[in-house]
Amino acid sequence: MPLHHDSFAPLDPGRRVLMGPGPSDMHPRVYQAMGAPLTGHLDPYFIGVMDDTKALLRYVFQTENAMTLAISATGSAGMETCICNLVEPGDEVLICVGGVFGDRMAQMVERHGGRLIRLEGEPGRPFTPEQVRHALDGCRPKVVGLVHAETSTGVLQPLEEIIPVIHEHGALVLVDTVASLGGTPVKVDAWGIDVCYTGSQKCLSAPPGLAPLTLNGRALEAIAARKTPVDSWYMDLSLINAYWDGDRTYHHTAPVSLFYALREALVLIHEEGLENGHRRHAANYEAFRAGIDAMGLAFFVDPPHRAPTINPVLAPEGIDEAAVRSRLLKDYGLELGGGLGALKGKAWRVGLMGQSSQRDHVILCLGALEQALRAEGSEVAESGVSAASAVYAGTGTA
Amino acid sequence: MPLHHDSFAPLDPGRRVLMGPGPSDMHPRVYQAMGAPLTGHLDPYFIGVMDDTKALLRYVFQTENAMTLAISATGSAGMETCICNLVEPGDEVLICVGGVFGDRMAQMVERHGGRLIRLEGEPGRPFTPEQVRHALDGCRPKVVGLVHAETSTGVLQPLEEIIPVIHEHGALVLVDTVASLGGTPVKVDAWGIDVCYTGSQKCLSAPPGLAPLTLNGRALEAIAARKTPVDSWYMDLSLINAYWDGDRTYHHTAPVSLFYALREALVLIHEEGLENGHRRHAANYEAFRAGIDAMGLAFFVDPPHRAPTINPVLAPEGIDEAAVRSRLLKDYGLELGGGLGALKGKAWRVGLMGQSSQRDHVILCLGALEQALRAEGSEVAESGVSAASAVYAGTGTA
Repeated sequence: MPLHHDSFAPLDPGRRVLMGPGPSDMHPRVYQAMGAPLTGHLDPYFIGVMDDTKALLRYVFQTENAMTLAISATGSAGMETCICNLVEPGDEVLICVGGVFGDRMAQMVERHGGRLIRLEGEPGRPFTPEQVRHALDGCRPKVVGLVHAETSTGVLQPLEEIIPVIHEHGALVLVDTVASLGGTPVKVDAWGIDVCYTGSQKCLSAPPGLAPLTLNGRALEAIAARKTPVDSWYMDLSLINAYWDGDRTYHHTAPVSLFYALREALVLIHEEGLENGHRRHAANYEAFRAGIDAMGLAFFVDPPHRAPTINPVLAPEGIDEAAVRSRLLKDYGLELGGGLGALKGKAWRVGLMGQSSQRDHVILCLGALEQALRAEGSEVAESGVSAASAVYAGTGTA
Repeated sequence: MPLHHDSFAPLDPGRRVLMGPGPSDMHPRVYQAMGAPLTGHLDPYFIGVMDDTKALLRYVFQTENAMTLAISATGSAGMETCICNLVEPGDEVLICVGGVFGDRMAQMVERHGGRLIRLEGEPGRPFTPEQVRHALDGCRPKVVGLVHAETSTGVLQPLEEIIPVIHEHGALVLVDTVASLGGTPVKVDAWGIDVCYTGSQKCLSAPPGLAPLTLNGRALEAIAARKTPVDSWYMDLSLINAYWDGDRTYHHTAPVSLFYALREALVLIHEEGLENGHRRHAANYEAFRAGIDAMGLAFFVDPPHRAPTINPVLAPEGIDEAAVRSRLLKDYGLELGGGLGALKGKAWRVGLMGQSSQRDHVILCLGALEQALRAEGSEVAESGVSAASAVYAGTGTA
C-alpha cells in the first residue's frame, strides 16, 4: 500500500490562545514536564509520580478518599468508568439532564443496562432541591447523577443544598466536575459527594487524555456488593486500583508523558493555592462579564447561575457565529468554542479555565471579538476592553 | 485537606534505555512533536493531523480500510474496543490463548457477554492450522481472536496459514499486533485480517496512550447487523468514526499532544520505509540472539517461533531476576521487563522494538547484562558483546 504522499510537512500548529471549552492553555512547565524522558509504567520513579499525582488530586478534590486516581483516557471515559462500576443491569438511576453532558450520562446508564429516570432541566437554569426531591419521591434510585458546570450551557449547579436531599433518599451522589474542578470550589468530602470525576484539560490545564476521579467508602461498598462483574475490563476500578495501590499489579501501560504533565499541572495549582486559584477564576470572569455587558452582548445564563469557567455568549441576530470564530482563529490564533446541543449555531462558548483564566486572555478575547464583530457588520455598544480594564483597576463594576 | 508535602520536587526521571515490553524509546523528533502548542480537538489544523495519522496508519497496517484510526486510550482499550463492537451477548467467540494477552482477550469476551471458547496453546509454541481447524470443527464462532506477537511469551504466531482456515469456517479474524506492528510484517489486506489493533508505545515508538486499529468491510457489516447497542459509549466505533470521518461530530476531547507524537513517529517509519524497518528489527534480533547464545543463556522460545521484537530470556538457576533488573536500572538506566504470567520471576523480557531496536541498545544490553550477572555471582560462558559485534561486522553467525 504505497502512500499517496511522498512526504509530510513538519508539525507546526502555530500559536493558539485556547479559550474554548477545553483544552485550555498549558503552562510552559507543563510542556517541559511532558517532554521529560519516558520511563516504563512500572519503573520505581513512575510509581512515585503516580503517588504524587494521587496526593495532589486529593488536595484538588478536597478529599481523604483512598481511591483517588486518574483513568488513562479522556473525561468521558472517566464518566463511563464511574457509571459502569456503579450501575448493574436493572439498577435504577436518576440523571439530572440540563445539557449535553447530563444527556451523555443518561446514555451511558442505558448502555450499561441501568433503568434510567431522566429529570429534565429548564434551559439555562440549575436544578432546585425541590425538583430533585419531587423526582425522588416517585422512585428509589441507587445513584443520582448531576453535572456541576454543564459545559454545553454554562450553568453552575449549586450542590450543597441538593446533595442532602439525595442522601435522605439513600442514593449515591455522582458529580461531573469536568468544567469546574480547579476553577471553582468542589468540596468532595465536606459536601458529601460519593463519586466525582473530571478531565485533565480544562481548569487543571494539563493535556487532554486523563480523567481524575475519586470514590468514597460508600461507593466502594456499593461496587463490592455487585452481583455481576463490571461489563468493561479496561474500566474495572478494582483492576485499575490494583495498579495504583498495593502490589502495583500491571493492568495497562499508563500514558507516562501525560502523567508527568498532569503532576506538574497539579503542582502549579498547589503552589498557587486552590483558593487563590478560585479567586483568580472569579476575578477574570467578573472582568469578562463587564466587557461582554458593555459590548451589548448577552449571556445565555442569568448571572446567579453562571459558571465562572465556561460561558456561552449569544451571537447577535444576523451574525454567523462560525464566521466570527474562523476570523478569531485566523487573525489572533484565538479559539472559542461553538455552541453545542441546543445552542449550536447560536452562541460562542468562552472558556476561562486554568491557565486560560488570565487577564491577558480576557483583554485579548474582548478586543478581538470587538474587531471581528465589526468586520462581520455588527454593532458594538461600548468597548468591552475599557469596561474590563476598569474592573481590573478597581474603578469599574462588573 | 492540607497536603502532607510542602513542596514537590521538580520532575526529573533521569535517563532511561527502554528495552522492556514497552514503552520503547522515542526519537527526539517525537518528543519535539509532542511539545508543540496545543490546539483544540476540532481545530482545522488538528483535523489535518488526524487525516495524516489515518493515512500513515493505513501504510503501516498495509491496508486500504476506510475505518482506520486510533482510540484515545491504551492498547488494552483498543483490544476491548474491537471486542465490544464485534461481540454481542450470546455470540460464540473462539480465542487462541497462548499467554497473558490471549487470556485478556478471553476475559473481555466474557465481560461483554460472549460465549467463550478457549483454545489453549502449548507453552512457548504458536498455534498450528490443524489445532485451529480442530477447534473450529466443534463450534461456529462469529469471531476468532489471535495474538500475533504474544508479549508475555515472545512467540510469533504465523498468520498466513491459519487465517484461511478461520475464513473457511466463516468467522471474522481479530488479530492483536500490539508487539508486532512496525517491527515485523503485518499485512492486513493481503493476509485477510478483518480486525486489527495495536498500541502506540511499542514498535511504533510513540508515547503510550493511543491504540491504532483498522476494520474491513466484513467487520463493519457484522457491526451494522448488531441487534443491541454496543455496551460502551466511549468505545462505540460508530460514534468514534463520526469524529474521525465525515462531519467531525464531537465525541471526546482527543489527546492532542499524543496525536502530534504518534503522527511524527509514523512519519519516521514512513521515511525509513516499512520494509527497511522490518530488516532493521530482524538484524538487531540476530545480533542479540548471537550474544545471548554466546553467554550461555537460554531463550524461552525455540528459534523458528521467536518474535524479533520481544523475547523472554530465562534467568540462570539460582539468580534473582528482579535483583539483576534493579542493578541494570541503577547502573545503566536500562529497563528490561520482568516475566509475566507463567514466566513471573523466571525470565527477563527484552524488547527490541521501534527506536529501541538499535545497534547501541543491543551492545549496551549484552554488556550490562554480563556485568550484572557476574555481580550476582553467575557464570557467563563467553562475551555476548563480541558475538553480537561479529554479527554486525558480518563475520559472525547468529
